[in-house]
Amino acid sequence: MDLLQETLSRIVPQDVAIRAKAHARLEALTMPHWALGRLLDLAEDLAGITRSLRPPVTGKTIFVMAGDHGVVAEGVSKYPQEVTPQMVANFVAGGAGINALARQAGAVVRVVDMGVAADLGSLAAEGKILSRRIGPGTRNMARGPAMTRDEAVAALEAGIDIALQASTAVDVFGTGEMGIGNTTPSSAIVAVLSGRPTEEVTGHGTGIDTEQFAHKVQVIDDALHMNRPNSKDGLDILAKVGGFEIGGIAGLILGAAAQRKPVVLDGFISTAGALIAHTLCPTAGEYMIAAHRSVERGHCIALELLGKQPLIDLDLRLGEGTGAALAMNFLEAAVRVLTEVATFEEAMVSTANA
Amino acid sequence: MDLLQETLSRIVPQDVAIRAKAHARLEALTMPHWALGRLLDLAEDLAGITRSLRPPVTGKTIFVMAGDHGVVAEGVSKYPQEVTPQMVANFVAGGAGINALARQAGAVVRVVDMGVAADLGSLAAEGKILSRRIGPGTRNMARGPAMTRDEAVAALEAGIDIALQASTAVDVFGTGEMGIGNTTPSSAIVAVLSGRPTEEVTGHGTGIDTEQFAHKVQVIDDALHMNRPNSKDGLDILAKVGGFEIGGIAGLILGAAAQRKPVVLDGFISTAGALIAHTLCPTAGEYMIAAHRSVERGHCIALELLGKQPLIDLDLRLGEGTGAALAMNFLEAAVRVLTEVATFEEAMVSTANA
Repeated sequence: MDLLQETLSRIVPQDVAIRAKAHARLEALTMPHWALGRLLDLAEDLAGITRSLRPPVTGKTIFVMAGDHGVVAEGVSKYPQEVTPQMVANFVAGGAGINALARQAGAVVRVVDMGVAADLGSLAAEGKILSRRIGPGTRNMARGPAMTRDEAVAALEAGIDIALQASTAVDVFGTGEMGIGNTTPSSAIVAVLSGRPTEEVTGHGTGIDTEQFAHKVQVIDDALHMNRPNSKDGLDILAKVGGFEIGGIAGLILGAAAQRKPVVLDGFISTAGALIAHTLCPTAGEYMIAAHRSVERGHCIALELLGKQPLIDLDLRLGEGTGAALAMNFLEAAVRVLTEVATFEEAMVSTANA
Repeated sequence: MDLLQETLSRIVPQDVAIRAKAHARLEALTMPHWALGRLLDLAEDLAGITRSLRPPVTGKTIFVMAGDHGVVAEGVSKYPQEVTPQMVANFVAGGAGINALARQAGAVVRVVDMGVAADLGSLAAEGKILSRRIGPGTRNMARGPAMTRDEAVAALEAGIDIALQASTAVDVFGTGEMGIGNTTPSSAIVAVLSGRPTEEVTGHGTGIDTEQFAHKVQVIDDALHMNRPNSKDGLDILAKVGGFEIGGIAGLILGAAAQRKPVVLDGFISTAGALIAHTLCPTAGEYMIAAHRSVERGHCIALELLGKQPLIDLDLRLGEGTGAALAMNFLEAAVRVLTEVATFEEAMVSTANA
């Protein structure tokens, strides 16, 4: 059996019995009933995911998957493609948004070359990035499939393998990405899976204007019309209108779920990756935690498809894993509430009148 | 000049020039324009507040102001009054929600007895709490003023003094509170200052039912009718329908603002205190950061009066300072973005096409 199929077969639901035990303890804490709201929901979720009343969340790593996109030839982005490797260098130097926010959250940043259209061999040789290149960027999806089905499987398996390799050091996975043009495939994925018109799931990316927006919608429509991805087949969608880093993210999520570890989804592109993972294995959704609600228009729809309510709503639209880093603080907070707050009985505090 | 007047006279607006410098740097960071949204607004705010492009946010303390309320005699709360000192003991033992969340955020918790209806002398003697008792709980505001005008001034000055004493160790102040019945005076304060009907600014507190809710609204209406607080006079409102801990919170905020330090407001009761501070000195609002949007119904209206958009929306309704603790992570994150992220020029990353 290949790695993808084996991984999918290992993904099982959360542990209901541990969830119930966590729920009972959270209901008995010295506070009015469920007075920490969604932080308590999160604590219960983490217990069910990790099968523990003391969910481990100390080892936190954000994998920033980088890849380029042939569709930039259509002029869908405001930034030139050379920004992808430049930002990889910035990540390695520690000077990007994700570096600052990961430091705040006590998380490690690992950059993965999933298919950047530049030679990053020296960074890989120095161990500064992981190299899992599927190719030098995808092909232009407006003219044909972005990648072959085999390449899609390879991208997913690269993500799975990274999750498995990391397993001893990582309690909490975070997803992140970099890839000029990658809101375009993300919108295409959400359009296929939601059945909504492209303009409803397309945003302004890094900051295109109204005219460029209309063009971007047209390019996505062309790609969907040209490729006709099968909405029931996550691999087909990934191959035809996806991206290497999106496949890597989907694989990372599946690998985390197979190991019964929580994976914090960053913004729009990460959630597109999560949708691919979810299409391949809906149960994987039980291991996903949505970090934030992006400004990108399709993100709300993508989160709805996953049935997820995000933890943070700060008008972020950077990607890189920045929202995931911020949200990791809340995972730690939720676990501290579950493990450190006394019950009414323990603290000898009077309960409410009946 | 007395401490209150002196403090009010020291509160001046944020530094506009430093704000502009921070803004310019934030606009040049290696990310699409303002792509970290409200986190960047927060960074700019912190620069303006602290007069620094490296705003200090390491020393974080949450002051949990505790006080009791004579109005509980009317049956407005689901919990007995003895829970106030029991929870103070829980705070001191480190077993409450605020202790867990403050530890996560790296914040110190200081509990202040502003007027609990129990003898906490031994805890104060051991240095485990600060004693600034104005009295053994307020009087029943449904039958007359909650406190005298002198007591209101004393409560405010206690909060100011705490902020001044703490100044060398504290970069960021957080507000918190404990006091059975204290959503009742908070709703009364918001009703006076918003002019909205009491039922629109009253919530279910620690969890009262529909019948108890109708009774609570009636009690607040009785208190407002009996006392007729002057909506232009914050001291009058605090004295007639406030609370000792609410006065302490208002004073703490004024003391923080006078020292040009940020103060993170927790939920509904803290925001009621902030409204008193704001009525006494609208400029103090420039130093307030709203942590979260509480489930308590009047909180949105209170935040609107302050012109504040909260950072977090997780259906919290615990108080104690728990929302403030969670939000402190974001202050640190905002400062890291301002100080640690490279500009396009520094990182030699290509900028967007014109």
